[in-house]
Amino acid sequence: MTTKQIVLDSRPKGMPTLANFRFEDYELPDLQAGKVLLKGFYYSVDPYMRGRMSDAKSYVPPLQVGKPIEGSVIARVIESKTDSFTKNDLVMGMLPWSREFIAEGKGLQKIDSLDKHVSYHLGILGMTGLTAYFGLLDIGQPKSAETVVVSGAAGAVGMVVGQIAKIKGCHVIGIAGSEEKIKLLKEEFGFDGAINYKQAVDIKAAIAELCPDGVDIYFDNVGGEISDAVIANINKGARIIICGQISSYNDNKAATGIRPQSALLRKSALMQGFLVSNYISRFPEGVLQLSEWLSAGKLNYRETIIKGFERLPDAFISLFEGGNTGKMLVEIE
Amino acid sequence: MTTKQIVLDSRPKGMPTLANFRFEDYELPDLQAGKVLLKGFYYSVDPYMRGRMSDAKSYVPPLQVGKPIEGSVIARVIESKTDSFTKNDLVMGMLPWSREFIAEGKGLQKIDSLDKHVSYHLGILGMTGLTAYFGLLDIGQPKSAETVVVSGAAGAVGMVVGQIAKIKGCHVIGIAGSEEKIKLLKEEFGFDGAINYKQAVDIKAAIAELCPDGVDIYFDNVGGEISDAVIANINKGARIIICGQISSYNDNKAATGIRPQSALLRKSALMQGFLVSNYISRFPEGVLQLSEWLSAGKLNYRETIIKGFERLPDAFISLFEGGNTGKMLVEIE
Repeated sequence: MTTKQIVLDSRPKGMPTLANFRFEDYELPDLQAGKVLLKGFYYSVDPYMRGRMSDAKSYVPPLQVGKPIEGSVIARVIESKTDSFTKNDLVMGMLPWSREFIAEGKGLQKIDSLDKHVSYHLGILGMTGLTAYFGLLDIGQPKSAETVVVSGAAGAVGMVVGQIAKIKGCHVIGIAGSEEKIKLLKEEFGFDGAINYKQAVDIKAAIAELCPDGVDIYFDNVGGEISDAVIANINKGARIIICGQISSYNDNKAATGIRPQSALLRKSALMQGFLVSNYISRFPEGVLQLSEWLSAGKLNYRETIIKGFERLPDAFISLFEGGNTGKMLVEIE
Repeated sequence: MTTKQIVLDSRPKGMPTLANFRFEDYELPDLQAGKVLLKGFYYSVDPYMRGRMSDAKSYVPPLQVGKPIEGSVIARVIESKTDSFTKNDLVMGMLPWSREFIAEGKGLQKIDSLDKHVSYHLGILGMTGLTAYFGLLDIGQPKSAETVVVSGAAGAVGMVVGQIAKIKGCHVIGIAGSEEKIKLLKEEFGFDGAINYKQAVDIKAAIAELCPDGVDIYFDNVGGEISDAVIANINKGARIIICGQISSYNDNKAATGIRPQSALLRKSALMQGFLVSNYISRFPEGVLQLSEWLSAGKLNYRETIIKGFERLPDAFISLFEGGNTGKMLVEIE
């Protein structure tokens, strides 16, 4: 059986371009015992994947040039030579960007195929939701009436962070990059205020205005000058959660700018980098709580779903151009 | 009674100079009830005092131009109109740079005048020792066999940090600015290795060489490019304690350079600013433990004592030129 896969043709220098990806035909081998033949359904595109396209050491090993891109994928079982899966089961795992592919049965997680919202397992009930949940609650330790600022607020993680902070009784301000996103944050996600960093003349002043009591928690998906502006407004004992630094993922060298150490010192503040994988043993707790909040209507959720396997590289690149509202996925019919 | 005091004549722009200080005669008023007349004995000079000479908001209110400099001082009671103190008692407090002065009885702490090492209460048994103790143990949480790097290692705080880390079974590397200090760290304070940042061609490589297992804890008194070099060597789960940023205290604007956020993210590392005053309620615990270690010969201690009231401004300025080894004090006979 011949299928199509997307390989890393070359490592991006700076911003990724379509030229870094190559579509190629691929002949699937015979299915061996212990393996399943899968057909892709939903493919997750996430900013962290940019890191794996470089050969710099990071928290996940780099992708190999000439090998398929890998990411979180939900797929349907076409044929199984395992005891764990049968035809038509839905499974999720770290899988290749290929229309069809063979995978080891172990390492796949079964998803209820009657689930109304299968794709949620790649987002609010998966990595991005859990990232928001553990980052905000475990590191941020939000207390009622505290002020929380979220950068990348209309992204997959940010919009969940803001809503959990509201559930915890906080004053929540989001930072995002379009008027449409600002409107969404305030009207659908219940943020108390939001700043369009592309239009604000003085982001620091805008934050000061919307956070009259200062900033107690900053959930940072972005980094760079947006972070400088937030950090200039932190309170004593502030907690800064470093979840992402999308502003610098495409830089060829270390990002430079204002060093935050002096502000941390003056304010006895904490800055903590984290990976959701640090919390694997607590994932069930997080999924349960997020599901309950979703069912109870306390969490809204938004996806940007792009259709068509061939649009995967495009969708990934658009993450760095603010092209997504909420979680971005590519769906294959 | 006329005495001499040192007032802030002007706020330093950048590095403080003698011109920022003015000696002036001062007529002491009559002693009122509840007050004591004191004669200064030991005056502490500390890097944090630079912050109070600016009018920027910081963790302690700024000093006023035309008013005496204030710092930690040990003084002898000449006359008391309180029930708490009598003539010849030794007391410690936040007091003016004046030869003689009047102070409220409350706010003064009595010191045993038979103590062999009275001056230690301004250092290893006072703020700098407690800063080392709580910063390293409470934030750093050192575990046996972990690697600890200390910048400003031959300073009042750094040399205590390194020795406590040794007591806790860590591999300890110090960074300091002279061959004499490097020798001292290794020979008197038991550091496993030390780097002279003024002579190292590549500090990052020097740290990598002396810390073959990476850096688990970085106790930072300095900031700037020395910190960049240490942070480039941190391990997953590293703890970075921001105790001081002496490299930037004399800057007129926010220090710029490599942003540490990406490294914190890649390594799930923590960076925490702190002030010893956050731990006031636990000071007795700290003083007791430090005293025990001193008595048991597990802690060595070093002071740089300058003699003469008129040399106070000089002594203070020299802190920023690496002029001190260990705790710097000015003693008045």
